[in-house]
Amino acid sequence: MILIHTPSPKEVAAYLPLFRAALPQQTFIALDEMRDPAAVQYVITWGPPPALFAGLPRLEAVFALGAGVDKLLARDDLPPQLPIYRLLDGGMAQQMVEYVRVGVLGYQRHMDIYRRQQAAGVWKMLAPRLPSEVRVGVLGLGEIGRAVAQALAADGYAVSGWSRTPRQVPAVDCLFGDEGLDELLARSDVLACVLPSTPETQGLLNASRLAALPAGAMLINAGRGDLLDELALLYQLDNGHLRCAQLDVFASEPLPADSRLWQHPAVTITPHIAAITLRQQAVTQIAANLERLAAGQEGLGLVLRARGY
Amino acid sequence: MILIHTPSPKEVAAYLPLFRAALPQQTFIALDEMRDPAAVQYVITWGPPPALFAGLPRLEAVFALGAGVDKLLARDDLPPQLPIYRLLDGGMAQQMVEYVRVGVLGYQRHMDIYRRQQAAGVWKMLAPRLPSEVRVGVLGLGEIGRAVAQALAADGYAVSGWSRTPRQVPAVDCLFGDEGLDELLARSDVLACVLPSTPETQGLLNASRLAALPAGAMLINAGRGDLLDELALLYQLDNGHLRCAQLDVFASEPLPADSRLWQHPAVTITPHIAAITLRQQAVTQIAANLERLAAGQEGLGLVLRARGY
Repeated sequence: MILIHTPSPKEVAAYLPLFRAALPQQTFIALDEMRDPAAVQYVITWGPPPALFAGLPRLEAVFALGAGVDKLLARDDLPPQLPIYRLLDGGMAQQMVEYVRVGVLGYQRHMDIYRRQQAAGVWKMLAPRLPSEVRVGVLGLGEIGRAVAQALAADGYAVSGWSRTPRQVPAVDCLFGDEGLDELLARSDVLACVLPSTPETQGLLNASRLAALPAGAMLINAGRGDLLDELALLYQLDNGHLRCAQLDVFASEPLPADSRLWQHPAVTITPHIAAITLRQQAVTQIAANLERLAAGQEGLGLVLRARGY
Repeated sequence: MILIHTPSPKEVAAYLPLFRAALPQQTFIALDEMRDPAAVQYVITWGPPPALFAGLPRLEAVFALGAGVDKLLARDDLPPQLPIYRLLDGGMAQQMVEYVRVGVLGYQRHMDIYRRQQAAGVWKMLAPRLPSEVRVGVLGLGEIGRAVAQALAADGYAVSGWSRTPRQVPAVDCLFGDEGLDELLARSDVLACVLPSTPETQGLLNASRLAALPAGAMLINAGRGDLLDELALLYQLDNGHLRCAQLDVFASEPLPADSRLWQHPAVTITPHIAAITLRQQAVTQIAANLERLAAGQEGLGLVLRARGY
């Protein structure tokens, strides 16, 4: 028996028939249909309620309906050895490519500056800038980061990528570790962060690293809110060192009403929509993973808890 | 002798050494270096002063430093049979692809709506929309329009294209003529206009055609300002039939300070920068054309005056 749970009953109601159609031999239930907690073998979930897992004595694995599992790993009711699988791509890589591209392209074509000129009633042409003249640094080279870096390289931008450990991505200049990060920051006209939140990445985009970006640079954060020091960002935008920012994730979400980010003319705010799990793609991937486990194979997207993703 | 003239002496000073380097055997001059008007064989120009051509008795051809030649053709000092060559691509097609793409991608990803939500302090996710769910209509299928249509089709959008006479573009559903235009309008979530200004296209985007777009559609005008009825556009934006517009060209440029477009929350204004002639690419193309003429071959980009481009 497989329990499907998200905070939205409507969402669960949408997922149930899709999973039943994908794996007719399995039994999928919603939380209110659960009579015997001991019969639950797997949980497919996003934002599960407190203590859910503690009440499921025969739980064999959890499938996250998303790629970021930091909140899941922070819970205290997960048995230590319980395997957790995350989505490797629920249509999310392509969405992230689009989200970063709209920011980079807008930066290259000065759309943010023209918007500010428009507000002031100013008609003034700026010298055109070719994609090859814009250096983009991508933080994070997992499935999503690689897709972003490669797409931007194909668009003609000068792309560098950074990850904790060495990686190779075609057409992308790959750096790693602390020294690599310093090097990448110094040459990123646009810094696009798609890193997960882990003990090692939290606070990564701090005051000194934001100051290390070239003058007039842009920050795109579509990773996690706790990676970024929001006050340090505001400081660098206010003093003109950074030109603009496009933020999808925040230290606290929804972004509090009193955050100065809301009204800042150089900040674009989106409500954590850069890469949303696309239902059918999530179902296809999790169903394939369930079949792998049933066949005695290893599941894909197994989370290494020490690593955090 | 070849005369180079634009309204900006700085621009002329930048062009002169590039042309001299490209064709060392030719003599290129600025207007203030012209001693004998009868020695001028060709003019390379953008925005030439009134009566310039009338004073050049042995002029053999004019090379426009741009793709749009409507203003040039409207002059009264051009000998009727004088060949005019326009730029087929001075790096402009790629710039136009970028300009239209940043609009279409922003529309697909609801960036305009998120911007308005941000201004109101609203945190609200909208259902994601795939590129294949956005229908884009491209008006104009010349060199630039074809490049735009094909790039958007490669991005995954459902692209239709329209031209006066039948054309074929791979992966693009091509329509033509008056009936084809009606059909295209009815199915364009984003209408991207890159048409030149000709007697046949002036006023094309009138009240009834804007009303024929689907509810919630976007207009991108990067063709010419006199194609669009700006008041009709404002009416459709105000009444909510159209969602937003990205405008690069206007009936009067610079856009007059009292235009209501400046402050409209659904309008993005850029100062005629969608596709700027890139100097070196213009030089390369015109130099190649001069060599073709010297070799007795036909020049590329010959303007058919009756057609207007």
